[in-house]
Amino acid sequence: MAFITDTCSNPNKMKHFRLFATVLLGAFLIAGCSRQTRTAHSPSDPLPSWNPGVTKTAIMEFVDASCEKLGEKFIPVADRVAVFDNDGTLWAEKPLYFQFYFAMDRVRQLAPEHPEWKTEQPFKAILDNDMETFASLGNGALTKMLVTANSGTTSAEFNQIVTEWFRKAEHPTYQRPFKDLVYQPMLELLNYLRDHQFKTFIVSGGGIEFIRDFSEDVYRIPKDQVVGTTMRTQFELKGDKAVIMRLPELDFYNDKEGKPVAIDKYIGRRPVFCAGNSDGDLQMMQYTASGDGPRFMLYVHHTDGEREWAYDRESSVGRLDKGLDEAMQRGWILADIKSDWKVVFPYELGEDPE
Amino acid sequence: MAFITDTCSNPNKMKHFRLFATVLLGAFLIAGCSRQTRTAHSPSDPLPSWNPGVTKTAIMEFVDASCEKLGEKFIPVADRVAVFDNDGTLWAEKPLYFQFYFAMDRVRQLAPEHPEWKTEQPFKAILDNDMETFASLGNGALTKMLVTANSGTTSAEFNQIVTEWFRKAEHPTYQRPFKDLVYQPMLELLNYLRDHQFKTFIVSGGGIEFIRDFSEDVYRIPKDQVVGTTMRTQFELKGDKAVIMRLPELDFYNDKEGKPVAIDKYIGRRPVFCAGNSDGDLQMMQYTASGDGPRFMLYVHHTDGEREWAYDRESSVGRLDKGLDEAMQRGWILADIKSDWKVVFPYELGEDPE
Repeated sequence: MAFITDTCSNPNKMKHFRLFATVLLGAFLIAGCSRQTRTAHSPSDPLPSWNPGVTKTAIMEFVDASCEKLGEKFIPVADRVAVFDNDGTLWAEKPLYFQFYFAMDRVRQLAPEHPEWKTEQPFKAILDNDMETFASLGNGALTKMLVTANSGTTSAEFNQIVTEWFRKAEHPTYQRPFKDLVYQPMLELLNYLRDHQFKTFIVSGGGIEFIRDFSEDVYRIPKDQVVGTTMRTQFELKGDKAVIMRLPELDFYNDKEGKPVAIDKYIGRRPVFCAGNSDGDLQMMQYTASGDGPRFMLYVHHTDGEREWAYDRESSVGRLDKGLDEAMQRGWILADIKSDWKVVFPYELGEDPE
Repeated sequence: MAFITDTCSNPNKMKHFRLFATVLLGAFLIAGCSRQTRTAHSPSDPLPSWNPGVTKTAIMEFVDASCEKLGEKFIPVADRVAVFDNDGTLWAEKPLYFQFYFAMDRVRQLAPEHPEWKTEQPFKAILDNDMETFASLGNGALTKMLVTANSGTTSAEFNQIVTEWFRKAEHPTYQRPFKDLVYQPMLELLNYLRDHQFKTFIVSGGGIEFIRDFSEDVYRIPKDQVVGTTMRTQFELKGDKAVIMRLPELDFYNDKEGKPVAIDKYIGRRPVFCAGNSDGDLQMMQYTASGDGPRFMLYVHHTDGEREWAYDRESSVGRLDKGLDEAMQRGWILADIKSDWKVVFPYELGEDPE
């Protein structure tokens, strides 16, 4: 495949994509979760799923002060740019980034057109559901799967494929649609910021079209306010019909140093509010923190093995190590899921309404 | 310079950039304009600077129908994406793209730090104001000038440089700030579309930061709704301070086939309304036209040598040749500046208020 062999044109991209693959590979056999239902409502509280405490107070003080026109911490409306990571920040990311389930299902869907996959790795391992072998194949296997799953169609066709997948797919342990596993406190935070004229953006390592499929319905974030990893595409005329073809080559891997680069490119402004959960978000935290005037850096810290998952420094998916050190050194805010979140997932509210 | 010598990593980008340079080079000695003041106001007319006629009627019928919820031509609000080229569509582009005056001034500004430029081309020609020699140097000269003018600073520094340039620079023949040379009828059209819940975007071959400098004030288009040509950048930590450095290498040239590719990437939706003025906009016209349901393709046709400039098929800046043929074949709307625009520039209204 062009993507695999043509390293001349994109050596750094290949390296990044492989790094992306490596980080994830170790996590293939990890699973486990439990749920617990809690609810919280207070008509006057804009963040009802956040417990009272230092974190909630800090968020509300920052947002209130940003709107005080005569105050020292006022932020002009045009500068109220808030960026959010997606995986592990707005929705769950365990046992694997949800997009990986899509990629595996897409390979299975394409298999009838590829009889050679019965013997060709990594496709054989995916089709045999043999994750142990898959994991042993190394980064190349993951890369090959991702490239295959994310290319070879027009842009419009791909969007349709993602939409259909979301309609049917379920999380392996929660056995719910993946979109159910967004974080209720973060939905409230997005709304709260928008109510105060912040413009909210997603800046994710995930595929940009994958997130755009649900960003409007679930997060109320327009597609054009989603920044993510992109595949190379090209314009083609098929008769009278103009289409965008998705090529089997990475265009831009939006993680780590890539995030502030993409923020500068897509948004054109340094954010004043940044939320993330992993070392992959550290550079956009640093970029946000480096501006003049008031700003807010929020790390979601996965501390709740009961209601969600507890992980940080040792996790292969969503590792928070250097970022945790820097957050503590620089006084960035940590949202401790166990103590700060009254509710984790929105369905908890529906299942047990007060 | 890395950009000039490193063709391995970006052969296509170099080719595109050189093409960009070629198209412009022939125009360096062309100039000439005249002005004529007219005004037009009608409190009930959302497009007062458009003369009554086929074009104005077509625009208004399309927009009205898009909002008729029970009509056949209704467009859901989320799909009301309108894309506008900038040079020659939202503001003038003669005798040269305005960004070229910026680039030449930037070279002059940097000259004291580069004594070697006194003898090194193309800098010598620019410093001597010897446009004839400059034009004779070929594409490499223009490329070298553009790369020099657009790199070597942080992103924040570059924004400041552009802002300061706009504050002082004047159009060579109109002797007015460049921002005065936006088209009043197009400002009204942008407002009219937004009043009907269209989201307006700029999709330009010009530098993305250059346009972002004035898009909010002049067009009321947020920076993050501007798509343009980009330079490669990278994230750097200078001590505690995170910055985006602008590298001397083209990242993406947003013209022709690049425009629909960038629309797909930045906006994530096929537009329903597209306005342009040159063959560089043809592919985004085709892309817009290829969607299902109602859509509107508008070519601004420069027909008025009295109030502005008259040019189309033979012009090196803003050539409209294939696009003109296709517009006529497919029934796309042509805005004929001479007959359709009552007013060209906003200052005409201020100078002669009714």
